[in-house]
Amino acid sequence: MRKKLLLLGILMLSAGGLYAAEGLESWEFAVDLIWLFIGAILVFVMQAGFALVETGLTRAKNASNITMKNLMDFCLGVLVYWAVGWGFMYGDNALGGLIGGSDFFKSPMDISESAGVFYKNWFFQVVFAATAATIVSGAMAGRTQFKSYLIYSAVISAFIYPIQGHWTWGGGWLAELGFHDFAGSTVVHSVGGWSALMGAWVIGPRLGKYVQGPDGRISVKAFPGHNIPFACLGVLLLWFGWFGFNAASTGTAVGPGSVLIARVAVTTCLAASAGALSSLALSWAWFKKPDVSMTMNGILAGLVSITAPCAVVSPGAAIAIGLIGGVLVVCAVEGIEKKLHIDDPVGASSVHLVCGVFGTLAVGVWGNVEGTALGVLHGGGFAQLGKQCIGVAAVGAWSGLTSFLLFRAIKAVLGLRVSAKEELMGLDLSEHKSEAYTGFQIFSNM
Amino acid sequence: MRKKLLLLGILMLSAGGLYAAEGLESWEFAVDLIWLFIGAILVFVMQAGFALVETGLTRAKNASNITMKNLMDFCLGVLVYWAVGWGFMYGDNALGGLIGGSDFFKSPMDISESAGVFYKNWFFQVVFAATAATIVSGAMAGRTQFKSYLIYSAVISAFIYPIQGHWTWGGGWLAELGFHDFAGSTVVHSVGGWSALMGAWVIGPRLGKYVQGPDGRISVKAFPGHNIPFACLGVLLLWFGWFGFNAASTGTAVGPGSVLIARVAVTTCLAASAGALSSLALSWAWFKKPDVSMTMNGILAGLVSITAPCAVVSPGAAIAIGLIGGVLVVCAVEGIEKKLHIDDPVGASSVHLVCGVFGTLAVGVWGNVEGTALGVLHGGGFAQLGKQCIGVAAVGAWSGLTSFLLFRAIKAVLGLRVSAKEELMGLDLSEHKSEAYTGFQIFSNM
Amino acid sequence: MRKKLLLLGILMLSAGGLYAAEGLESWEFAVDLIWLFIGAILVFVMQAGFALVETGLTRAKNASNITMKNLMDFCLGVLVYWAVGWGFMYGDNALGGLIGGSDFFKSPMDISESAGVFYKNWFFQVVFAATAATIVSGAMAGRTQFKSYLIYSAVISAFIYPIQGHWTWGGGWLAELGFHDFAGSTVVHSVGGWSALMGAWVIGPRLGKYVQGPDGRISVKAFPGHNIPFACLGVLLLWFGWFGFNAASTGTAVGPGSVLIARVAVTTCLAASAGALSSLALSWAWFKKPDVSMTMNGILAGLVSITAPCAVVSPGAAIAIGLIGGVLVVCAVEGIEKKLHIDDPVGASSVHLVCGVFGTLAVGVWGNVEGTALGVLHGGGFAQLGKQCIGVAAVGAWSGLTSFLLFRAIKAVLGLRVSAKEELMGLDLSEHKSEAYTGFQIFSNM
Repeated sequence: MRKKLLLLGILMLSAGGLYAAEGLESWEFAVDLIWLFIGAILVFVMQAGFALVETGLTRAKNASNITMKNLMDFCLGVLVYWAVGWGFMYGDNALGGLIGGSDFFKSPMDISESAGVFYKNWFFQVVFAATAATIVSGAMAGRTQFKSYLIYSAVISAFIYPIQGHWTWGGGWLAELGFHDFAGSTVVHSVGGWSALMGAWVIGPRLGKYVQGPDGRISVKAFPGHNIPFACLGVLLLWFGWFGFNAASTGTAVGPGSVLIARVAVTTCLAASAGALSSLALSWAWFKKPDVSMTMNGILAGLVSITAPCAVVSPGAAIAIGLIGGVLVVCAVEGIEKKLHIDDPVGASSVHLVCGVFGTLAVGVWGNVEGTALGVLHGGGFAQLGKQCIGVAAVGAWSGLTSFLLFRAIKAVLGLRVSAKEELMGLDLSEHKSEAYTGFQIFSNM
Repeated sequence: MRKKLLLLGILMLSAGGLYAAEGLESWEFAVDLIWLFIGAILVFVMQAGFALVETGLTRAKNASNITMKNLMDFCLGVLVYWAVGWGFMYGDNALGGLIGGSDFFKSPMDISESAGVFYKNWFFQVVFAATAATIVSGAMAGRTQFKSYLIYSAVISAFIYPIQGHWTWGGGWLAELGFHDFAGSTVVHSVGGWSALMGAWVIGPRLGKYVQGPDGRISVKAFPGHNIPFACLGVLLLWFGWFGFNAASTGTAVGPGSVLIARVAVTTCLAASAGALSSLALSWAWFKKPDVSMTMNGILAGLVSITAPCAVVSPGAAIAIGLIGGVLVVCAVEGIEKKLHIDDPVGASSVHLVCGVFGTLAVGVWGNVEGTALGVLHGGGFAQLGKQCIGVAAVGAWSGLTSFLLFRAIKAVLGLRVSAKEELMGLDLSEHKSEAYTGFQIFSNM
Repeated sequence: MRKKLLLLGILMLSAGGLYAAEGLESWEFAVDLIWLFIGAILVFVMQAGFALVETGLTRAKNASNITMKNLMDFCLGVLVYWAVGWGFMYGDNALGGLIGGSDFFKSPMDISESAGVFYKNWFFQVVFAATAATIVSGAMAGRTQFKSYLIYSAVISAFIYPIQGHWTWGGGWLAELGFHDFAGSTVVHSVGGWSALMGAWVIGPRLGKYVQGPDGRISVKAFPGHNIPFACLGVLLLWFGWFGFNAASTGTAVGPGSVLIARVAVTTCLAASAGALSSLALSWAWFKKPDVSMTMNGILAGLVSITAPCAVVSPGAAIAIGLIGGVLVVCAVEGIEKKLHIDDPVGASSVHLVCGVFGTLAVGVWGNVEGTALGVLHGGGFAQLGKQCIGVAAVGAWSGLTSFLLFRAIKAVLGLRVSAKEELMGLDLSEHKSEAYTGFQIFSNM
């Protein structure tokens, strides 16, 4: 019986588990509050991680622009998520559970326990929303208009992310179905990944990325990043923040929740490490060099892959999941760039979409809670895997389609892309009239 | 009755609320200890944020120098705050409550509960003192002698900051008056801001900043920062740390204190985001470009503005406060640079002094605790606003005057400024005989 | 009696104190779990600190390579420490207590309390193991083959670190002897420091470091670091993480443990500040300039020096220890570079070995717990100091010898060093076929 309850608890616990502890004066209330505060600020730090990875892996002439986009998608996202996003995600069911429909512009004046629970949960949720939003900036780096990017980021944080979030974490139809996404491989990362892929596709590649030769064959030019230590620091800050992203998705540090925290920390640590190892090995074998950016993406691949299953798999399974994630990301980066000819400068769609899908399915393969089988490998059959597929497909259809329509609409109405002249000049000068590295001599033809 | 007590609690809770929980073996003691530890190390991280913002927004030839100043104002500040600063701030009232007068060089050998409370509170307070001190380095960047800067930073951490800190957080006369500064818009930021303004004024502008033309008109030259991603990372690290700065100023995570933590996290997040938005919008309209450094300063403006009122305003009010702070900082940067002709390279006085004052007054406008009106907008009349004005004026007079005298004294005795030749060469080479970016080609005339 | 127990508690508490709190549903369990989680992720952040310090203090042409080494020694270390390192360190005594011999490849499926305790402790320990491993990369920067470095890092995390770790923190013979190393001046830092020294010695200096003139005298060339702000940020992130490294080595935040946390935070803060001050002063007097990298190393010297004694010394003693550490590191950097002619590009052996030894001995000099004398200065005689010497010697002999043999074996079998041509080209291009700073103009002869 206890095992059953634990299983149920784990399946319900998630980034959306909006727990209220037992009374304002209790130790449970204080401990949970500190715990979610820690989790939230760790997820906040991931904004710095994304900014650095994206800046480091793209060109110097767009560095100010990409940092501005990272700052503003967070700031705008916070404001619109407060205004309407929270209500769509965690408001009372409306439209038959497809959407939340209350608590817009919520602004309590009091400091009662219920206000405290709202503050606590909102703060934890808003940083997840901002994570989904910020994934896109890297995929569209180097050619997207600043004002158009602002509009995209407001829409994803206000509508696209919260509405599908309601389905799983807001107690909507995917939650009722039994879809399990502990910390957001699908709910957060695949949503950002789908938008990234759609954005990169709709806007088209950077100038000079694909050049058709006289023989009709297309050659692909690499644009190496301009600051690898930035990217490295960014990866480490993302990993640091991811410990909060995954572990605080318990929603509580009380009782069995506290064991889950420790397990999640371990599986998160192992999967990321394994992702680095397999990406390094595969890139070394394939490209005859231990590739720096592939290895970094391997770490992120491991992290995205373990995000859904982190609480329901053993350390050994976490390593397997990380190893596979690291292989997948290398293949996906190559495939998206060289087969699909979609120019995603930092590999955002490979990391967040491909590994997000894989991680979600991994729950149905390796999932296992104290003897109660969830996944195929533990004798659970294909029931959970089927539910995971439904979740992946539904969220993918929603976020892929709405993102596609959003970018097409922006393109038609406002324009999405800067002019060729502006792109060659660099977005720092053309959009912001200032350089990122004043005084440094930089090759002008980059 | 309960509401009254809560109000009283909030007004007394502050960065200076030196709470002892109920016994070493209680959960309250453990939770409060962890909470203040978290808060303190978050405030510590702000040192990295300041170092990066100041480095990024100034020129490459002074980058080592400004990082050294940021490191040493912390290290020296820690030592002198331990020696005498703590005693002046939290020692028993002396001179009729104008100053603390005990607990100098405090060094307990035991690990009793009372020693634990001292250790906990000292660690939390020392990082606030260091925050006030480090604000100045940016305003005086590019022309200040290293040894003179060391002397300034020792004096502010030993005397200027702790003595006025005693008035409000040490239980002195401003606390008794009912002046409310929850986390230090006035006690920390305006003190640093006044010193920054006085320092920048006394030392004079960087060479070439203001050039008088043949027609007598003064033209103002911009010296753009040399590394915008550093500045962006710095802003995000400051914001990250600010969550601790504001939220841990509850002094406790027990009972109503825990609700305040969550509220403060939300208001801090919203005000910073709103500050970015209004600075971006105003700079875009005014300068015809979405200005990068103005937007970053807008985030900091929102953060400084919400620091005093963070615990007593609603989310909606936090947004209003942030929006106004973001407008103020743009106007202040322009006004101080172009009307007052004071050269503050990073806008430190605009961010910390102007918004520090505004945030303190905001308590008297938007303040409201569970129906008990503090502020004008909630029917509280002008009583609280009057007290806020007294606090702003008293702290401003003290810190402005002592800083002015300090910089004049250093200038007279030791010299404050490097020679013109050293300034043109850059302080890295002239003061430290080494470059920050060995190997990189940098325009020599910057 | 209580004092005796406290003393015993402090001496046993250490990074190795694997505490289980009283039952999954208790507040002690939740608080300790959060506490160790915080500690672990803070120690994790030190990886970013090491990467930045090492990158910033070496040359631009090797920047990608050194970040890759820092990433991969962590990732590989995590995997091998999970596979065998944990078992050697914390497994049941084998070979008469010289080694642990159980719990290899440990992968619990359940989320019981005992699994939670394992997860918690493993996560906290693995980041310490990774700290020891990552120290070496800086000392061997600029000339070490990437694949050879991977092998080294797997061996130290799998065998060299855990086996000596068993002696002290795994309940082995040094623990029984009464050797006291609270957070790892010896167990972590000196082990990394010995490996760093052996590695730098075996591989030899960078090309052009030591040039013999016609008169037979050897001149020493300085290779300045290429990014001082990186190094500054790295130092601050290390310091930030060190608060977790030292304070969470209590293993618990319950009861007297919580007082120790606060004391450790204070002593850590003071010693680092004092280290900066004495390094700055000595370098200023000796080299006639306030040396930037010496001051940064002074902070790290203070941190390493206080790591062993942080819980058993007063604030005043912590300042003394930091001041001495700061002097030692300047002398050691000069001596190792100019007398021993060992080329340690970032001073890793000076910081981690020399100050690690000093800090360990400091326990026997300044140690004092509530009137119970441990150290010479408190009337404790030389008993504790003798035990400290035994620990230093035993761990030094083990880690120095095994590291030496390891590097010699790698050199003989695989090769340790890149070719002269590759070294001159830089390891970014020769090992990874990519640059760290694409687009930037960098002097080609560096």
